[in-house]
Amino acid sequence: AGDSIAGQKVIVKCQGCHGKDGLGRALPGGGEAPNIAGQKYDYLVHSLMAYKARERKSSMMSLVVKNLSDEDIANVAAYYAAIKITVEAPQ
Amino acid sequence: AGDSIAGQKVIVKCQGCHGKDGLGRALPGGGEAPNIAGQKYDYLVHSLMAYKARERKSSMMSLVVKNLSDEDIANVAAYYAAIKITVEAPQ
Repeated sequence: AGDSIAGQKVIVKCQGCHGKDGLGRALPGGGEAPNIAGQKYDYLVHSLMAYKARERKSSMMSLVVKNLSDEDIANVAAYYAAIKITVEAPQ
Repeated sequence: AGDSIAGQKVIVKCQGCHGKDGLGRALPGGGEAPNIAGQKYDYLVHSLMAYKARERKSSMMSLVVKNLSDEDIANVAAYYAAIKITVEAPQ
């Protein structure tokens, strides 16, 4: 399941690009990091594991996940998944 | 850039899983689709192109993008990127 409180210790490695609030920031090399606020827990875990296995390619994310244990991944996913989002859909 | 109004014609292929509001729904095979509401435009285009090139693997997304032109992709990315999201971060 993952522990969102324990995830608060992991996000130091994430927040430079994804924020504490999960909203993507401008990247040093140009472009923006994606939003992950309120993202589904299973999707976040799946994505991080895919970066770790290099099934998904991202030089930045490969570097970051290399030092995350499976428990860290579960906890940080729980942290970002726990952020409540509300949407305002276009008509 | 992509035209979010034109994107409204494309989302018929997306909304079953991602909603008109961009919030992921439960999938028939189990699990949930990710949220894409208010996601960054460039990230959405990059993800869809990666599914089309099969650099990212997803049997569902491969099927869907196969029939999307580059223009469709730009327009549907603009549609979902235009959804305003607000977040409520944990303390």
